[in-house]
Amino acid sequence: MTEPLASWNDGPAKDAVLGFVERVTADGVPPEERVAVFDNDGTLWCEKPLPIQADFILRRLHEMAEADPALRKQQPWQAAYERDYAWLGQVMVEHYAGNDTNVRTLLGGVIAAHAGISVDEFEEQADAFLRTAQHPTLGRGYLQCAYAPMVELLRYLDANGFSSYIASGGGRDFMRPISEELYGIPRDRVIGSSTALDYREGTIMRKPEADVLDDGPEKPVRIWSRVGRRPLLAVGNSNGDIEMLDFAQHANRPFLRLLVLHDDAEREFAYTAGAETSLERARSENWTVISVADDWSRVFD
Amino acid sequence: MTEPLASWNDGPAKDAVLGFVERVTADGVPPEERVAVFDNDGTLWCEKPLPIQADFILRRLHEMAEADPALRKQQPWQAAYERDYAWLGQVMVEHYAGNDTNVRTLLGGVIAAHAGISVDEFEEQADAFLRTAQHPTLGRGYLQCAYAPMVELLRYLDANGFSSYIASGGGRDFMRPISEELYGIPRDRVIGSSTALDYREGTIMRKPEADVLDDGPEKPVRIWSRVGRRPLLAVGNSNGDIEMLDFAQHANRPFLRLLVLHDDAEREFAYTAGAETSLERARSENWTVISVADDWSRVFD
Repeated sequence: MTEPLASWNDGPAKDAVLGFVERVTADGVPPEERVAVFDNDGTLWCEKPLPIQADFILRRLHEMAEADPALRKQQPWQAAYERDYAWLGQVMVEHYAGNDTNVRTLLGGVIAAHAGISVDEFEEQADAFLRTAQHPTLGRGYLQCAYAPMVELLRYLDANGFSSYIASGGGRDFMRPISEELYGIPRDRVIGSSTALDYREGTIMRKPEADVLDDGPEKPVRIWSRVGRRPLLAVGNSNGDIEMLDFAQHANRPFLRLLVLHDDAEREFAYTAGAETSLERARSENWTVISVADDWSRVFD
Repeated sequence: MTEPLASWNDGPAKDAVLGFVERVTADGVPPEERVAVFDNDGTLWCEKPLPIQADFILRRLHEMAEADPALRKQQPWQAAYERDYAWLGQVMVEHYAGNDTNVRTLLGGVIAAHAGISVDEFEEQADAFLRTAQHPTLGRGYLQCAYAPMVELLRYLDANGFSSYIASGGGRDFMRPISEELYGIPRDRVIGSSTALDYREGTIMRKPEADVLDDGPEKPVRIWSRVGRRPLLAVGNSNGDIEMLDFAQHANRPFLRLLVLHDDAEREFAYTAGAETSLERARSENWTVISVADDWSRVFD
C-alpha cells in the first residue's frame, strides 16, 4: 500500500480529510451514501490565467472572426480576435462579484461557438483540444494541469467506497471525454453546465441556447437531480461553490467541506478574486481551507 | 444458478434477449458500454387503468378539492373530485395521439398538487403511497404491480455486467424511493420527468413549474445527458418510446430494441391505444415485440 495523500503536508487540511474518512468508515455509512462532489475549475485543475474551456472557446471564436470580419467588432469575438485576455478575465471577476452583464455577452459567444454540431462532433473537438493544447504559462499540456493532491484525494475516496462527482460550472460535455483518464471519474458522474440538446434522426445535436448554468444555487439542485442524495463531502474554491458546500451538511452523518485557497504564486497562481465570500464563509462556518502553499508538497504531477 | 428468464416462454422474444446478451459477451463489449434503458409505465410495471403516479396525484387533487369548493369546477380537480377516470384516461390517449391540450391542463394540476414542499417531503409522500395503496382492479398493492419477467430481465442484465436505467415519462422523484427495492435499479439511475427545483437555505424545494417532460424525443436527450452514452438495449411499450428505441442503434456493437405488446386481458390488460405507431415501427424496423400473452408464463410475482 502506498501512503494515501502522499502529496499533502501534515496539517489541519490533511487531518480533516483523514478524520472524515475514518468517521465514515467507523460509522459504517452505507457505500451508496458515500457521495463526494468536486468543483472542477480551480478545484481539480488550474483555472488561471483563464479557465481551460475558455481557451477552447476563444480559439473557436478567433476562427469565426477570421472567417467573418463583422464579428471582429462584437464581443466576445473582438476579445478573442485581439487576444484581449483582460476583457475575458474581467468577465469572470464580475461574475463572481454578482454582475452577469458581460457573462451573458460571453455566453452568447460560447453558445454560438459550438452550436449546430452533434454531441459526438463536439466531443471529438474537445478531446483533441485537451490532448494537444498547452497551458499558456505553466509550460505543460492542459491534461497535466490537474492538481496531483486532488487526484490522490479522489483515489483515496474511491478506495474507501466513495463515489465522486464533478459538479462544475464548466461544460459537462467538455469534461466528459477526459474525466475518467484524468480523475478516475466516469463520464456519467460529470455534472456541469450544458447546452440545450435536440434529438434529430438518431443524433443528439447542440442547439444554440444554454440549458443549465451549473453554478451557485444551481449546483445543489443539479447534484440532487443527478444523484438523489445529499453529498457527505463537497470541495470547491470560489463563491460559486458556496451553496454546494452548504448542501453537504447532515444531522446524522459525518460530513466535510473543503475550500481551496490559491496562495501559491510560485508553483501555481495566487488569487482570491471571486472567492472572497466563500473564504468568509469558511471562517464563519468552520469549513476546512486547503492552502496550496502550505498543504500541498507538490501541485502537479 | 437458477435459470435466467424463468418466467419467459421459449420463443422469439426470449431468443432475442439471450442472443443479444451472448453477442455482447462474445464481443467483449466493455462493461461501461453495457447500458440498458427501460421505460417504466407499461414496460416495467402496470399502467392501466391509469398510471400509478396518476392515482397518487388524483388523491392529492381530491384532497385539495375537498378543502376548496371552487376547485371542484375546474379540471383536473373536477375529474379527481368526481372520480371521473374516463376524462383522465382520455388525456393519455390524446397525448399519445399527439394532442396535448388536456395534457397541459392535467400538468397544471400535477404541478400544483405537490408544489412548495421539499424534495424530502415529496419523497416521504410518494414512498408512503406506494407502500400502502392498492391497484384498483388487480387485487394487489402497487409495489406488486411490477412485471416479474422484466425484473428477471433486469437481474439477468445486471449479472452480465449491464447498467440499467429507468427512462420514464413519469416522475423521477416519484420512482426513486422504490426503484432499488422493486427493480434493483439504484435511485441515481432513474431518469424521468421532473419538476423545477429551487435551493433555499439548505433544502431543495419543488417549484410550481415543470422542468423536463421526459417523453418522445426528450428521452434520448435525457439519456445522453445522464449517461453520456448511447444504450445497447432499449425497452418500451408506446409511441413515447419510439425515439428512445431508435437511439439504441449502433454501427459496431450488438444492440436490441424491445417493445411490450399488452395483449393479455385476462392476466393484465389488453390495449394498443397510444402504441399504434410504435407497433408499426416494430414491424418495419425489426424491433422485437414482447407479447404478454405469449412470451410470459407469468406476469406478476
